[in-house]
Amino acid sequence: MFTQGDSYSQQFTVSEAVHRDFVALFGDENPLHTDEVFAKAKGFQGCVMHGNILNGFLSYFIGECMPTKDVIIHSQEIQFKNAVYMGDVLDFSATVEGFYESVNAVEFKFSFKNAASKVVAKGKIQIGLLQ
Amino acid sequence: MFTQGDSYSQQFTVSEAVHRDFVALFGDENPLHTDEVFAKAKGFQGCVMHGNILNGFLSYFIGECMPTKDVIIHSQEIQFKNAVYMGDVLDFSATVEGFYESVNAVEFKFSFKNAASKVVAKGKIQIGLLQ
Repeated sequence: MFTQGDSYSQQFTVSEAVHRDFVALFGDENPLHTDEVFAKAKGFQGCVMHGNILNGFLSYFIGECMPTKDVIIHSQEIQFKNAVYMGDVLDFSATVEGFYESVNAVEFKFSFKNAASKVVAKGKIQIGLLQ
Repeated sequence: MFTQGDSYSQQFTVSEAVHRDFVALFGDENPLHTDEVFAKAKGFQGCVMHGNILNGFLSYFIGECMPTKDVIIHSQEIQFKNAVYMGDVLDFSATVEGFYESVNAVEFKFSFKNAASKVVAKGKIQIGLLQ
């Protein structure tokens, strides 16, 4: 079902609604994310979107886009490399780095790129296959 | 402002509203998270809450609970060790592992424990201090 080198790709949009609902859900109103004047004073082009919105997209990717629903996330790591702004359409891609059949685990490498093809985040995610 | 060994603790509740709003926001309706019969057939006590809800709590922790608002997340890693269920009240604790003044970075080690003091997730998070 999984083979090393298998790749997946998808687009995710950090819309105003996603940002608003994320703030409402988790209560992270840090001014970097909510105050344009603050964010610009810190050298950004505008409010920086929460990195953990991207982790929410990963939840969807694993939960909904695998060839099976019998999956659970074991671990994740993510590095934030460039700022994501409101309205950014992100090209997500993930590749199977390893499929460990004896322990029913699959490891993916992934990246999110913005419209300028700049990597905004990258990392790894390991899932287990439920029996 | 940060010293190695500084510790923070806090409670987070995975309420029905948090679960519902997370599903609505990111669209991860995997049956493990939404179908009790499926989850039980896989050996769990009930629907398993999305691990990335915990990453949302981390967003709040960094964005709102630091001694300064001038912060940005550089990287995160998390390992999911035990299932989280609807209504679980999680004891979160984080400790400063290192403060790297020359690069304005702080590294935390964290864990989430359930009411039975079982670690449900643990990991590391590195932040930068904005100038």
